[in-house]
Amino acid sequence: MGFTVYLSGEIHTDWRDQIRSGAEQCGLDITFLSAVTDHDSSGAAGDHLGEESSSFWRDHKSAKVNAIRTKTSIESSDLVVIRFGEKYKQWNAAFEAGYCAALGKPYITLHGPEIIHPLKEVDAAAMAWAESTDQVVEILKYVTKS
Amino acid sequence: MGFTVYLSGEIHTDWRDQIRSGAEQCGLDITFLSAVTDHDSSGAAGDHLGEESSSFWRDHKSAKVNAIRTKTSIESSDLVVIRFGEKYKQWNAAFEAGYCAALGKPYITLHGPEIIHPLKEVDAAAMAWAESTDQVVEILKYVTKS
Amino acid sequence: MGFTVYLSGEIHTDWRDQIRSGAEQCGLDITFLSAVTDHDSSGAAGDHLGEESSSFWRDHKSAKVNAIRTKTSIESSDLVVIRFGEKYKQWNAAFEAGYCAALGKPYITLHGPEIIHPLKEVDAAAMAWAESTDQVVEILKYVTKS
Amino acid sequence: MGFTVYLSGEIHTDWRDQIRSGAEQCGLDITFLSAVTDHDSSGAAGDHLGEESSSFWRDHKSAKVNAIRTKTSIESSDLVVIRFGEKYKQWNAAFEAGYCAALGKPYITLHGPEIIHPLKEVDAAAMAWAESTDQVVEILKYVTKS
Amino acid sequence: MGFTVYLSGEIHTDWRDQIRSGAEQCGLDITFLSAVTDHDSSGAAGDHLGEESSSFWRDHKSAKVNAIRTKTSIESSDLVVIRFGEKYKQWNAAFEAGYCAALGKPYITLHGPEIIHPLKEVDAAAMAWAESTDQVVEILKYVTKS
Amino acid sequence: MGFTVYLSGEIHTDWRDQIRSGAEQCGLDITFLSAVTDHDSSGAAGDHLGEESSSFWRDHKSAKVNAIRTKTSIESSDLVVIRFGEKYKQWNAAFEAGYCAALGKPYITLHGPEIIHPLKEVDAAAMAWAESTDQVVEILKYVTKS
Amino acid sequence: MGFTVYLSGEIHTDWRDQIRSGAEQCGLDITFLSAVTDHDSSGAAGDHLGEESSSFWRDHKSAKVNAIRTKTSIESSDLVVIRFGEKYKQWNAAFEAGYCAALGKPYITLHGPEIIHPLKEVDAAAMAWAESTDQVVEILKYVTKS
Amino acid sequence: MGFTVYLSGEIHTDWRDQIRSGAEQCGLDITFLSAVTDHDSSGAAGDHLGEESSSFWRDHKSAKVNAIRTKTSIESSDLVVIRFGEKYKQWNAAFEAGYCAALGKPYITLHGPEIIHPLKEVDAAAMAWAESTDQVVEILKYVTKS
Repeated sequence: MGFTVYLSGEIHTDWRDQIRSGAEQCGLDITFLSAVTDHDSSGAAGDHLGEESSSFWRDHKSAKVNAIRTKTSIESSDLVVIRFGEKYKQWNAAFEAGYCAALGKPYITLHGPEIIHPLKEVDAAAMAWAESTDQVVEILKYVTKS
Repeated sequence: MGFTVYLSGEIHTDWRDQIRSGAEQCGLDITFLSAVTDHDSSGAAGDHLGEESSSFWRDHKSAKVNAIRTKTSIESSDLVVIRFGEKYKQWNAAFEAGYCAALGKPYITLHGPEIIHPLKEVDAAAMAWAESTDQVVEILKYVTKS
Repeated sequence: MGFTVYLSGEIHTDWRDQIRSGAEQCGLDITFLSAVTDHDSSGAAGDHLGEESSSFWRDHKSAKVNAIRTKTSIESSDLVVIRFGEKYKQWNAAFEAGYCAALGKPYITLHGPEIIHPLKEVDAAAMAWAESTDQVVEILKYVTKS
Repeated sequence: MGFTVYLSGEIHTDWRDQIRSGAEQCGLDITFLSAVTDHDSSGAAGDHLGEESSSFWRDHKSAKVNAIRTKTSIESSDLVVIRFGEKYKQWNAAFEAGYCAALGKPYITLHGPEIIHPLKEVDAAAMAWAESTDQVVEILKYVTKS
Repeated sequence: MGFTVYLSGEIHTDWRDQIRSGAEQCGLDITFLSAVTDHDSSGAAGDHLGEESSSFWRDHKSAKVNAIRTKTSIESSDLVVIRFGEKYKQWNAAFEAGYCAALGKPYITLHGPEIIHPLKEVDAAAMAWAESTDQVVEILKYVTKS
Repeated sequence: MGFTVYLSGEIHTDWRDQIRSGAEQCGLDITFLSAVTDHDSSGAAGDHLGEESSSFWRDHKSAKVNAIRTKTSIESSDLVVIRFGEKYKQWNAAFEAGYCAALGKPYITLHGPEIIHPLKEVDAAAMAWAESTDQVVEILKYVTKS
Repeated sequence: MGFTVYLSGEIHTDWRDQIRSGAEQCGLDITFLSAVTDHDSSGAAGDHLGEESSSFWRDHKSAKVNAIRTKTSIESSDLVVIRFGEKYKQWNAAFEAGYCAALGKPYITLHGPEIIHPLKEVDAAAMAWAESTDQVVEILKYVTKS
Repeated sequence: MGFTVYLSGEIHTDWRDQIRSGAEQCGLDITFLSAVTDHDSSGAAGDHLGEESSSFWRDHKSAKVNAIRTKTSIESSDLVVIRFGEKYKQWNAAFEAGYCAALGKPYITLHGPEIIHPLKEVDAAAMAWAESTDQVVEILKYVTKS
């Protein structure tokens, strides 16, 4: 069975590449989707729509352009993997988890044990908590095996 | 027109009381709902279901008991107000924002200007951003006036 | 059978009052909902959230505060009456008609014969076209009679 | 990621062609859908179903035949671009915006700054406001880039 | 448990009154809804909206006014009872059965054994087939008993 | 734009073939779906599941096996064409019309003018009424033209 | 906050009464719903609709009459409590758990530790697992406290 | 017409292979999906996510990983076949039947006559009851024939 998997969350490490190459090595029939992960491009996604004097509206326009992509990606996925790192607020990752939960879209979280407590509501609605990208690949292998 | 409003997010300041009393002073016909805001009760919500040796499962059980209440509250509300403070991860607040967004449930955010940037995705799907509880009460007055 | 009816559209004539008083004279069990129909209040609905230098964002904020009220009103109605006058663009009225159509919420239009042609798509999805408020009251009498 | 984009609204200028050829020049993987944009064909879409003595019913029949196409197009799209010109009522364009909003289908508007005010409710529910077809192509490039 | 029951279909016998009075005699907590069952009123429901030269459009307008009432009634019911007699086409009754089936709204049919065969698709999606109004009352008693 | 069209209703004349061959002659990109139109096969669709002494249950089992096919066909179509002849009850055709109406699935009816009155509720929710298969093909040509 | 709670499953012990009286002693604002729990009445729920020679169809008719009540009860509840005993197949209890899961309706299970393994899929989608009715009452107290 | 069929339930006999090979011999255009049917793999599906001291949580984790696969399979199927054997609790099979029922996903049951009574609620919502895999293949042949 083929799966479409959306990779959501943290953009500062290469976890997406690890999962993609792990899946490829196992020969899995998976299409991966992702937000734009280049921080500067993402923050500037709405800049070509006209300059803003207020940072609120500049952020607002970029966030909405990104949301076109994100919303379509989540809705066309069979599974979402959401990565939380230790730095930054990452409220967009938690926002996407809530979005999945309300849609009944299965998601799994990927994070270290030191942030279990603040993520308890996010983990409570997840189908699994993984600590390593290897574990994620293992899940993908299992759910797609014929 | 009567409204049901769910107050979500930060539990360390008295912003809920400010909104409730502001609405009462204006004589608004609003029913307010809220998660349990006592931090210790909330964290222990699942403890009576049996002890756990792992903190992950203890948190997990409590988070799910809380989610029964939260989910019902969000779904029966006409509007959700989500407060972000400056401290803590508050991923549950962002999670509830995403949940609202996917349901098409209108929400407004309440936070200071210093966290505009990390909240840009959350604000992008909101109906308004307020900085003070007075502004929230003003919105409630407007949307319920006959 | 009681009905909730949302009165949408043109705000420059007293058509809402005519329908309300017609229904009252017939003793109908109807709750009427409406957007804020005072043009200045409506345009300023977001002003207390902070000044904007750009008229786009000022309008944007007010439109969103109004949308909280509008969305809740439409979704809690059994029937929507949408009035189109001859002046102004009234794109918000057509927008609300499309919103109803997608939800499967029954609506009727109220307009003169001179704007039949530009309203053809809006009328095509309506349950009735009325030219006078008396006709609207007649429909309300019929659909609620015991 | 491939996208399906429905081009809605004004039919008197060549904005659809500009977007299509812009996307083609950038090599984007996009399927474009559109209503029938020939004004006479569109107005006569129901004529073969029998003559009508009243212009209301002639318009009604054509509008419904067009709606078969429109509804299917909107529902199978990932994104809708809605163009408003300065002439004509264009209530069908605003109607389609409302339809998208109720479905949670992302849309962007394309219009000049002189009609910001009457479009404020339509823009409030949009993911972006563009003034030029180049800006639209830029958004399409961003949301589909791998 | 209180129930709302919509009585759909045949209008030439007093089956609705039999069910209503049977329920009353048993003291059941049931609200009954119904289309307008006076054949002439129902056929003329749209006449006040203006005369039509074609019988198709006269019927069309009345049918849509009736549909406002019918749709709201079905959607607010917990159970629908659909009566088929031996005379007339009664396509509206079968139409309402299909409407219920698609919504997942439980319905029961009420008809004699001589029309089992043509009603097989309608009965296949029903929760019960009753031959008498007494049997219907028996079901209502059972499903609402405390 | 490709369309999937489900052909529902009367099985005693060759209207399905006329539409199929008309569409083929016009080179339309349409996939046609249909119930099993052989009357005997359709009535016996459940017979292999075991004999029944009662004709009600024999019909019941066959109707449900047919419904598996019908439901999937309707839900995967973009448009449904529903044919009513002058003979027989054809309650299944009206049932499928109601099913479409509740799903918001566009349908058109195909019938002669002598049954306008009993079909008024079914026509009221249709996107068009056609009297001939040529008219249906014309609509298909229009809604799929590039 | 008031809650409606549906009590599903095992009918041979007095667990429903224990929860009802526990909630009453705590003064909770809860409406309890339940299937008919008298085994003989439940099995005979369709008998008045006519005798059947086959036990399959007798069961079938009764099960469907019961389903009218069950479906309405589940859909109008905020929370479902599902009790599994050690005896009997209790497939209806597991069926109702699956029904809740697909609707996104929160449910909690009530069963002893000796049937953890066969219930693992049912528990995996539950919001909590309770072993005693006291624990259930504790949860109800928590989720409804003001 | 091609169909996707999910094979749910009992894993101790070769009924899946019988259906698959029967469909193949008839040349049917069917894609079959299934849970992982190796009992040990299935029970260990979450083991690589870390050891658990409690059997409840070990089961819980595996059941959730399996649910990712199951949920996607059910939702992408046109028809579900659910097999109940005579041994074991098989609550997951009844759970999946309830899940289908709530989604309006057609399913058929496959079981012997000796378990008619405990399966009556499950059968009441099914489209057919088959006793042999040959009967299932017969249904698949019928619903997909061109």
